[in-house]
Amino acid sequence: MKSSFGTHLNLSLFGESHGQAIGVVIQGLGAGIPLDLDYIRSRMELRRAKGGISTQRHEGDTFQIISGFFEGRTTGTPLCIFIPNTDQHSADYNRERAAVLRPSHADYTAYEKYGGYQDPRGGGHFSGRLTAPIVAAGAICQQILKANGIQIGTHIIRCRTVRDSWFSSIDENALREEIAALEYREFPTLSEERGRQMRELILAAASQGDSLGGVLETAVCGIPAGVGEPFFDSVESVLSHLIFSIPAVKGIEFGMGFGFGERSGSEANDPFTIREGKIRTKTNFNGGVNGGITNGMPIIFKTVVKPTPSIGQPQETVNINTMEETALTIQGRHDPAILHRARVVVDSMTAIGLCDLLIERQGTAWTSQKFTD
Amino acid sequence: MKSSFGTHLNLSLFGESHGQAIGVVIQGLGAGIPLDLDYIRSRMELRRAKGGISTQRHEGDTFQIISGFFEGRTTGTPLCIFIPNTDQHSADYNRERAAVLRPSHADYTAYEKYGGYQDPRGGGHFSGRLTAPIVAAGAICQQILKANGIQIGTHIIRCRTVRDSWFSSIDENALREEIAALEYREFPTLSEERGRQMRELILAAASQGDSLGGVLETAVCGIPAGVGEPFFDSVESVLSHLIFSIPAVKGIEFGMGFGFGERSGSEANDPFTIREGKIRTKTNFNGGVNGGITNGMPIIFKTVVKPTPSIGQPQETVNINTMEETALTIQGRHDPAILHRARVVVDSMTAIGLCDLLIERQGTAWTSQKFTD
Amino acid sequence: MKSSFGTHLNLSLFGESHGQAIGVVIQGLGAGIPLDLDYIRSRMELRRAKGGISTQRHEGDTFQIISGFFEGRTTGTPLCIFIPNTDQHSADYNRERAAVLRPSHADYTAYEKYGGYQDPRGGGHFSGRLTAPIVAAGAICQQILKANGIQIGTHIIRCRTVRDSWFSSIDENALREEIAALEYREFPTLSEERGRQMRELILAAASQGDSLGGVLETAVCGIPAGVGEPFFDSVESVLSHLIFSIPAVKGIEFGMGFGFGERSGSEANDPFTIREGKIRTKTNFNGGVNGGITNGMPIIFKTVVKPTPSIGQPQETVNINTMEETALTIQGRHDPAILHRARVVVDSMTAIGLCDLLIERQGTAWTSQKFTD
Amino acid sequence: MKSSFGTHLNLSLFGESHGQAIGVVIQGLGAGIPLDLDYIRSRMELRRAKGGISTQRHEGDTFQIISGFFEGRTTGTPLCIFIPNTDQHSADYNRERAAVLRPSHADYTAYEKYGGYQDPRGGGHFSGRLTAPIVAAGAICQQILKANGIQIGTHIIRCRTVRDSWFSSIDENALREEIAALEYREFPTLSEERGRQMRELILAAASQGDSLGGVLETAVCGIPAGVGEPFFDSVESVLSHLIFSIPAVKGIEFGMGFGFGERSGSEANDPFTIREGKIRTKTNFNGGVNGGITNGMPIIFKTVVKPTPSIGQPQETVNINTMEETALTIQGRHDPAILHRARVVVDSMTAIGLCDLLIERQGTAWTSQKFTD
Repeated sequence: MKSSFGTHLNLSLFGESHGQAIGVVIQGLGAGIPLDLDYIRSRMELRRAKGGISTQRHEGDTFQIISGFFEGRTTGTPLCIFIPNTDQHSADYNRERAAVLRPSHADYTAYEKYGGYQDPRGGGHFSGRLTAPIVAAGAICQQILKANGIQIGTHIIRCRTVRDSWFSSIDENALREEIAALEYREFPTLSEERGRQMRELILAAASQGDSLGGVLETAVCGIPAGVGEPFFDSVESVLSHLIFSIPAVKGIEFGMGFGFGERSGSEANDPFTIREGKIRTKTNFNGGVNGGITNGMPIIFKTVVKPTPSIGQPQETVNINTMEETALTIQGRHDPAILHRARVVVDSMTAIGLCDLLIERQGTAWTSQKFTD
Repeated sequence: MKSSFGTHLNLSLFGESHGQAIGVVIQGLGAGIPLDLDYIRSRMELRRAKGGISTQRHEGDTFQIISGFFEGRTTGTPLCIFIPNTDQHSADYNRERAAVLRPSHADYTAYEKYGGYQDPRGGGHFSGRLTAPIVAAGAICQQILKANGIQIGTHIIRCRTVRDSWFSSIDENALREEIAALEYREFPTLSEERGRQMRELILAAASQGDSLGGVLETAVCGIPAGVGEPFFDSVESVLSHLIFSIPAVKGIEFGMGFGFGERSGSEANDPFTIREGKIRTKTNFNGGVNGGITNGMPIIFKTVVKPTPSIGQPQETVNINTMEETALTIQGRHDPAILHRARVVVDSMTAIGLCDLLIERQGTAWTSQKFTD
Repeated sequence: MKSSFGTHLNLSLFGESHGQAIGVVIQGLGAGIPLDLDYIRSRMELRRAKGGISTQRHEGDTFQIISGFFEGRTTGTPLCIFIPNTDQHSADYNRERAAVLRPSHADYTAYEKYGGYQDPRGGGHFSGRLTAPIVAAGAICQQILKANGIQIGTHIIRCRTVRDSWFSSIDENALREEIAALEYREFPTLSEERGRQMRELILAAASQGDSLGGVLETAVCGIPAGVGEPFFDSVESVLSHLIFSIPAVKGIEFGMGFGFGERSGSEANDPFTIREGKIRTKTNFNGGVNGGITNGMPIIFKTVVKPTPSIGQPQETVNINTMEETALTIQGRHDPAILHRARVVVDSMTAIGLCDLLIERQGTAWTSQKFTD
Repeated sequence: MKSSFGTHLNLSLFGESHGQAIGVVIQGLGAGIPLDLDYIRSRMELRRAKGGISTQRHEGDTFQIISGFFEGRTTGTPLCIFIPNTDQHSADYNRERAAVLRPSHADYTAYEKYGGYQDPRGGGHFSGRLTAPIVAAGAICQQILKANGIQIGTHIIRCRTVRDSWFSSIDENALREEIAALEYREFPTLSEERGRQMRELILAAASQGDSLGGVLETAVCGIPAGVGEPFFDSVESVLSHLIFSIPAVKGIEFGMGFGFGERSGSEANDPFTIREGKIRTKTNFNGGVNGGITNGMPIIFKTVVKPTPSIGQPQETVNINTMEETALTIQGRHDPAILHRARVVVDSMTAIGLCDLLIERQGTAWTSQKFTD
């Protein structure tokens, strides 16, 4: 298992969905950062947002900061965030039922990996619930980035047949307004009408015991040119590593992404120009990254989130104890979509990755600089 | 800079396109692996393959193994691969010309990152040339994987308007044959007719001083269930990290990838079944990975490679010394496509990532086990 | 801050002496290890042992395993050990008093490092209290090592003018008996008489408000030849890195250690011989390590622990707020020696380091092999 | 094998004593550092210095900088130092002779570790020759440290019965003079008379086919307070990890080191005082480190180097092929002492460790700051 990430800003994640608690130990934060706990809470709330759709566990994801935080500021030593599982339903766990593998879940793969010793309750360590401490850590990183003029936003750009409009990828001022508008929206689309249509599709799927996936678009605004650590730690490498850690993500593309497969060089290159005394590109097909390093334009990427595999319809599967084929109808209520909730996790992972890259260049001292000068 | 990758199998890359040499130091190989130097050479030749299209440097990428190799076998200590740059054209370097930024290259971003101290000749450390030692390292990993029944293959599945057929993602025997057929094809498509059509498109673009991108599909056959180290080191995270290190890659998707955005759960889940006494899935929409861990089905993913940014047409840009807008027409002959050459780099990165994951579980001793027993 | 250690077995430590809790996240343990919680508790008790001398906090170091543990066995996912601080005395904290730097403590250095934002209560993250989760982690590692025939023991070999006898460094059977005899001794000496004399010296120092240091000798029995990962991760490098993490340790030597400075090669080399069909050395001046790799003989090293800097006598110092020289008499009761308590921390660090080295070669699967076969 | 070190400044070492070349890849250096190649050469010469005693290979350790260096300055990308082995004597290698294990060498342990596949010629990867690239890397680090006012020096403080005087550990000006005086001394002692006596002892040992070890004392001057990354990366942990990587080192102690075992707290604490407006200590028993972090006083530590195990006298040993006991008399000329040569390696390791710690706090940008402003 490798449940830690990051060379300069390092996260160590722990916990299982139905265990006693989940949490994260964060290393690499400088001393003296005044944490905005309300902001962290608001981000964690968005991860739990219904957006008019979801059903989820009732617990409030109350977090505690166990260490590394004294009199309202970071101390510079490891910061441990601890989130008790108050709604564990452990009684729900049934060894017989667990033997019937849920298709497209990690039931089978975790069984093979851990020889049957994994915690099988609710997805164990591989549950989407583990994204809660990620969001808390991400909120701290976003606070640091904001203090340095860097903002991150994500919206749902596609859900089945409905498409939202694109982020303004050239006009930084327009983009900042779009990001601000999205910040506290429970179902984050730029067009509220398109958001309404997407929700209708999702509710229609839910009424049939089905679920939907979709595509998210993320923008980072205000990131300076020169960030990224190729050969291996290109901006795309670091962000994709983190984004693919989010359960249900199956693809990522930067700038025009798979569209590059249909274009020629003359249609795909971004010409340089001077705007307000700075080098900028006229188009942003490359999503703000050239050669794995930021070029000062907004970073733009898209992430695909697969439909939640827990559906109410009968499915073919196998009982791993008897090694016989069988049918399974997953009981209980499940999220018919997690797109709107995933976006805050994508924001968080992005913030974590960018902080890791920025600290490499500027040291841990950089993280607290704007707060202690 | 972070030019090393891997916790268990570790690569440290060095060198610049027009420096004295490029190379890689590999750690984590067990002692006693009899390296097949001809196989390494053949893979490196494919990276240089013309496929009826490309023009490239004439040097033969002759590699030397400087250390970690004695009497035909690995010694277990760091293995250094060294590739002299015999065709350096350093005289080509012109400080005036280097000030005119090539659009969609790393000229500007490297300048910002390194404050002007980077080696500006031919892309420096960020040149595609740095993939040569990657291919050598990948060939060693492929040799280890093959000894354990694991095979990797990549073909061009799309180039502008032409599409090749898909890999057989369910039928492992058919897939092994497809991979074998591709192995030494200079322009790797499953359908030779489609390959011919793609080459025509590329030559047409070349005749206009333009270039083309495309999409590659990769398959891994014979990988056991249970490989992958979530939370952060999911199979998708590790492979995407490596694949995005390849210059020109702008997107990756596993299984049906971005297609998940249009599907419902009932259309996207892979039902489990029993085949030949083993748990398998009936479909392979998830590309062989559930919850970040392999499920025993072939791993399937697609990678988009952007058109080479060096084109013969005039482009708008900026002179970074004068900070004035200017026009640039890149002189000399350049590859109008690198798709067919990139595939061997994708194979190599895949092999490197899988070895890293397999060693975590089974130790460095595993790498040489099949060769020394 | 770098509060994590280990490539293969990884520990992330968190918490402050007077915060809410302290703990550790352990990665790299295989699935299926049946943890002996009573053994862990007994080791933690020894860390708190009075041995007829010490005064310490009354809390019982009750630990909880928050994650990675299900139905009595490890799950293979991160194992979080959590130790609440029930006896925090936070009210004791006095900002004025904290400004008067305690000589030879970390008060001043932490202030400089963290710009005054560190948690100043009771040593914060640098307190000896942080060794409690280390001992819990070490006990798990010792359980794994014991299952593989490897045993670790430490005794006090010197305290001021009194010396204990040496470990049997050649005769493995005798050594195993010595280690067994020490295991639950609160004041660990081989000679009980010498232990009594040392305790008298310590009590005499205590009666004058003073403290004593001393030297520990550690032995590892049953470690196979071939363990160690030079060039940089020699056995000596890995163990010294961990041992010097223990607050108060100021020196370490392997085998005859500083005695080598007075010897010639002919007096210092260990001749090889055959014993019971195995290659062994006749003497063990090198402490079981040649060229950074174990040679199959017991590993032998000595560690010096400085006297506890908290003494009851008046000391010269500086008030960092006023930048004036002043006198300080530390109030309250303090341990006049921690030698007997430190030994279990040294054992633990040794076990952690050896597990890290053994996993590199044999993978995480090795850790649970003896328990799940 | 783990032949890389460092999180922020990272070294990857490669090569074998009698292979084609040895070298190191250095990552983490900023862009724009003007390397003083003459200084690097002078340090490498000291590693080869005869000091009136040694016999060594005649090759001149000519190094090449293969990458990361352009027009006289670092580029910020990996810097590869390459040292060809021109004096390989491969013909000397005799498989029969190699089966007779040299006592206290790594012959047996490497055999066990690598199953007989190691390069057995001249110690392979574990040869002292591998310290040559370390010295080159260290010289670069020392250049960076000097630009920031930090100086490192090492002398022989003990050889058998002869002792040199101690470094001035309180008076920084005196210490700087002592370090300057030592810099180019081939046999580095503070007292030239004592140095002469030591050389006599060594020559006497040599005349009997024997060798001598000794103790080195190292001082670091000008290091600011607040450097060190406990819990695990204390100054002592990082430096000891590196120092124990040097073949032949068997012990290290900081400040009064093992002397603490005989002292009481009142005799061992360093009182704080104010000198020239700065907080300083009156004594320096703790060697400039409190709680694992520098306190602004000189760092002082001692390292013991064992006698070179290659001696001309007959020794008892084992033939690993026949598993029979036998006698061995090592032929050829060998260094009767390596103390005077080891000191430059100790300096280098110290410089590497301190740079790694300083970069954590201040980023890679710090390394070039003094050179590019």
